[in-house]
Amino acid sequence: MLSAVRHFVFGAPFPSSWAQAERLAIPLAFVIVSSNALSSVAYAPEEVFIALGASGVQGRLYPLLLAIAIVLLVFIVVLSYEQVVRAYPGGGGAYVVARQNLGNSLGLVAAAGLLVDYVLTVSVSVTAGVASLGSALPFVYEHRVEFSVLFVVAITVINLRGVRESALILALPVYLFLAAFLVMIGAGVLDFVGPGGTAGASPAPAPSAVGGGVGAFSVLRAFAAGCVLLTGLEAISNTVGIFRPPAARNARVTLALLGGLLVALFIGVTLLALHFGVRQTVGEGETLVSKVARSGLGAGSLYYLVLASTMLILLVAANTSFAAFPRLASILARDGYLARPIANLGDRLVYTNGILLLAALSVALIVVFRGTTHLLIPLYAVGVFVGFALTQAGMVVHWWKSRERGWLGALLANGLGAAVTGTVLVVIGVTRFTGGAYIVAIVMALLLGLFTTIRGHYRAVAEALSLEQRPVFPRIARSVVVVPIGGVHRAVLPAIEYARAIGTTVRVVHVAAEEEAARVVEARWNRLGIGIPLTILPSPYRAVVQPLVDYIRDVVRQHPEEYVTVVIPEFVPKRWWQHLLHNQTATLLKIALLYERRVIVVDVPYHLEH
Amino acid sequence: MLSAVRHFVFGAPFPSSWAQAERLAIPLAFVIVSSNALSSVAYAPEEVFIALGASGVQGRLYPLLLAIAIVLLVFIVVLSYEQVVRAYPGGGGAYVVARQNLGNSLGLVAAAGLLVDYVLTVSVSVTAGVASLGSALPFVYEHRVEFSVLFVVAITVINLRGVRESALILALPVYLFLAAFLVMIGAGVLDFVGPGGTAGASPAPAPSAVGGGVGAFSVLRAFAAGCVLLTGLEAISNTVGIFRPPAARNARVTLALLGGLLVALFIGVTLLALHFGVRQTVGEGETLVSKVARSGLGAGSLYYLVLASTMLILLVAANTSFAAFPRLASILARDGYLARPIANLGDRLVYTNGILLLAALSVALIVVFRGTTHLLIPLYAVGVFVGFALTQAGMVVHWWKSRERGWLGALLANGLGAAVTGTVLVVIGVTRFTGGAYIVAIVMALLLGLFTTIRGHYRAVAEALSLEQRPVFPRIARSVVVVPIGGVHRAVLPAIEYARAIGTTVRVVHVAAEEEAARVVEARWNRLGIGIPLTILPSPYRAVVQPLVDYIRDVVRQHPEEYVTVVIPEFVPKRWWQHLLHNQTATLLKIALLYERRVIVVDVPYHLEH
Repeated sequence: MLSAVRHFVFGAPFPSSWAQAERLAIPLAFVIVSSNALSSVAYAPEEVFIALGASGVQGRLYPLLLAIAIVLLVFIVVLSYEQVVRAYPGGGGAYVVARQNLGNSLGLVAAAGLLVDYVLTVSVSVTAGVASLGSALPFVYEHRVEFSVLFVVAITVINLRGVRESALILALPVYLFLAAFLVMIGAGVLDFVGPGGTAGASPAPAPSAVGGGVGAFSVLRAFAAGCVLLTGLEAISNTVGIFRPPAARNARVTLALLGGLLVALFIGVTLLALHFGVRQTVGEGETLVSKVARSGLGAGSLYYLVLASTMLILLVAANTSFAAFPRLASILARDGYLARPIANLGDRLVYTNGILLLAALSVALIVVFRGTTHLLIPLYAVGVFVGFALTQAGMVVHWWKSRERGWLGALLANGLGAAVTGTVLVVIGVTRFTGGAYIVAIVMALLLGLFTTIRGHYRAVAEALSLEQRPVFPRIARSVVVVPIGGVHRAVLPAIEYARAIGTTVRVVHVAAEEEAARVVEARWNRLGIGIPLTILPSPYRAVVQPLVDYIRDVVRQHPEEYVTVVIPEFVPKRWWQHLLHNQTATLLKIALLYERRVIVVDVPYHLEH
Repeated sequence: MLSAVRHFVFGAPFPSSWAQAERLAIPLAFVIVSSNALSSVAYAPEEVFIALGASGVQGRLYPLLLAIAIVLLVFIVVLSYEQVVRAYPGGGGAYVVARQNLGNSLGLVAAAGLLVDYVLTVSVSVTAGVASLGSALPFVYEHRVEFSVLFVVAITVINLRGVRESALILALPVYLFLAAFLVMIGAGVLDFVGPGGTAGASPAPAPSAVGGGVGAFSVLRAFAAGCVLLTGLEAISNTVGIFRPPAARNARVTLALLGGLLVALFIGVTLLALHFGVRQTVGEGETLVSKVARSGLGAGSLYYLVLASTMLILLVAANTSFAAFPRLASILARDGYLARPIANLGDRLVYTNGILLLAALSVALIVVFRGTTHLLIPLYAVGVFVGFALTQAGMVVHWWKSRERGWLGALLANGLGAAVTGTVLVVIGVTRFTGGAYIVAIVMALLLGLFTTIRGHYRAVAEALSLEQRPVFPRIARSVVVVPIGGVHRAVLPAIEYARAIGTTVRVVHVAAEEEAARVVEARWNRLGIGIPLTILPSPYRAVVQPLVDYIRDVVRQHPEEYVTVVIPEFVPKRWWQHLLHNQTATLLKIALLYERRVIVVDVPYHLEH
């Protein structure tokens, strides 16, 4: 019955042979690799404006300078990842690249950064999507935690179903988003060049009030906030395999295209915000994108299209983590750094445990940070840039060692990438430390500790189970068998029979939790005439399991060189709820005996018909 | 470790020999049997005033007439229970008396009524206690659900600890309550007779507006509301055993005393409320008792003493249900009408499961009825009066049959009791049907259904397990043994060894959830050279347990007349959290095989040292 419910919600199982991935042409592959990066446009410009506004920085100069700096950063990162795609056509995630070139430890640091990043991608994208919807519907904004959790649950169920050929379905939101944003930016440009534009209406900004030290820190913090634009750019380097041949070349073209579009949208939204004189502070019910769209398009259907498509692409971006996180976690589990059940492929060919883990963690973040994107942002960029910096540093080592054709140019590109992303990482870490980056540092340290502990356990287990030297086991003597009985009835007969068949000495015991009942059991046992004496164990505290375990321990101690077998008669009700009507002594005893050395437990069931 | 925590919270186990109850003198026994009845004074007068006020009935006439009617009812019930104590010195609860004299079915009806009553006693008393505290502290009133749940949890923990000799501890709240109320009533009397009393200040009430039909129904409903005063009066008849000899005589003296005090307090509070002109409506933050006490004593320390002692005696009253409910439930369980684990005496000599069940049910009621006593009251009186009426009817039969000395007087007393309480039950049922009495009717019907179902199951089990005719079992042949292995390592060796020792044909099988891994397992198995061929089971959907179960079913089918043994090698980690790092295949397989006929499961553990 349970399995029927499961099949209804999650679908019937898929055979393993379906695991072969489809190869996609650029327009469809683009959809899969781009949503995470493109959707950052929904919150990255907003974060820059909030950070500058909160520091009292006014005017258009600094937003423009920051936008240019971030665009440069995008170009450098795109250039660096072009080299990664070239070198790792099979897929070069930060974990793989860092591990191969910088050693295990730094590989694990990159993996920890990525895991944190994937969880945050879900939380940030979903809350930002809800914020987009909430800009039009105040009810949604007021219940943003509930709506965010609801969306995560929906995405989780979809992923547990293991949808195939998702590219076609995902194409709609991605291209809708691109179209809506290009229309919005186009309308803004027309407004700017056209006669009677609103630009004249907005007051000329006061000259910038930025001075020395504090001002520089504020600007750096605003820069760090804007760096979340780059989250998701690395996705393409993991998924070269989904491109049609020549895969590497197609992936590189797509990456360049993605970089260009990302920059265009970011600059567009920033310029429009400046043009319309939009201000943004923390805790408003309306997003920057919504304000810009409303100013440029009016509160008509186009405006709602921008909001809706923003929400959709953000949900798609969250969805990408539901593929990436379980995949990375399963690789780590297979390498022995995470619990092995995470590597299990479920019956719908998805990593069920990894998906559930990601859902639980991102829901926890959403609840703790009250569904507010702005509070999550300081945590977000850290993990991403750890991955960037380690990947590029690893690539430098790769090119230095390989010296294949064109290695010097690639080395320089990746060297520049490593230096710049490393510097940005430091900037983010310093300027946003108290804002939340410290949490990521702590979590990453804990993750590394966890990796090491788990790895140590598996190593120890492998050694303990090794067949290198044949171990000496206790003798499998069929000598002593203990049969605990709760009463004298039909269900105990096959157990006694079985005990006699496999052992030479059979000891039947009953725990006297109630003295009167024990006397009845003894009398009925003797009347049965089986010829084995019944041992009655006293139980002053009315416990049943503990006196049995103590007795069995004694028997084990008396037979130091062999296994002792305990045969448990267990009657099994026909329906699950009937278990509630019986004491679970057999189950509890089995659990307790699992931890006793040299004890083998035999379960002889007796099935009730009613 | 878990057991250490449990011992810290709930204390170390008690030996069974402690179960002997202490015999108490009247002053201490009074404390135990009176709190439930006395504490009703906290809400019964309030309910009368609310009911009359809501019907628009004004003036002093009706409150006084109702008070007199309820006092008469108390006298009749006390007189009836005096006869119960006389006839059942060993303790005559409604279930025992009704079952013995009116038959099984009516006994079960009484039991169902009592179970409902006990749950409601906890909910009503705790919410009324919180309301008392909330009269002084608005914060408590606003969070009355949370505070009520907190108190139930506290009482539950205390009862799971199984405190002995509680009479001395309980004496303080009970006598404090009596003292505070007598002082309050005394102050009111002084105010009434003294010069310049506030009585003159309150306006002379308008003549009553009660007319015909509707008015009579309103008055009857107010009467039904006031009948909750009698809840708990029957407690003494269950607990004659705690009195010092002559127990029956002492119990009867105490019952008379309790009836007198109950009447005095009820009349006192009612007269004071009339004297001070107090009005009461639903949903006020202040209770009637608080208003009366404030009017009579001023908002000084005596006023707070009244509130505090009211809260304490209500908590003590809730506590009495935590003894009565588990005791009755365990009797029902022993008689086969409730699940047997409810009859288990825990290691602190308390019925742990019964206590937890009561706590869960009363918390559910508190949450559903939003911590509001007034909403629970319509449910409360029904169960109590079912018990009253059935007990008295049973007693009539008892005296008629026994004809012992003085039977006729006793029969008349109980006959009067039966007639009056039966009539009151009808009044309550009719006037409060839509207010909540219908819920009790439904719950009681469901309980009776549950009793019958459970009883049927146990009868069927007893028959199935009976040794009257020796059953024919499948042959215990030591022929076919199946050993499922997940890999080739040390842990499988003792299992194989054991299988060889007990069987003649050993079949080793491995499920190929991953094809590549299966090939490795096969190669390593062959290298091991044990001489038994390895069967590889295909698993296109990557499930492990289901292919094994299917295979074992096949083997069972091929050997129709004997048991098939499955030997499971299981490695057991040293620490509990390490279980999370391994797939629970062995556990899941054991659970699945429990339901297979003619399959015996042998668990051969291999204990890891790290």
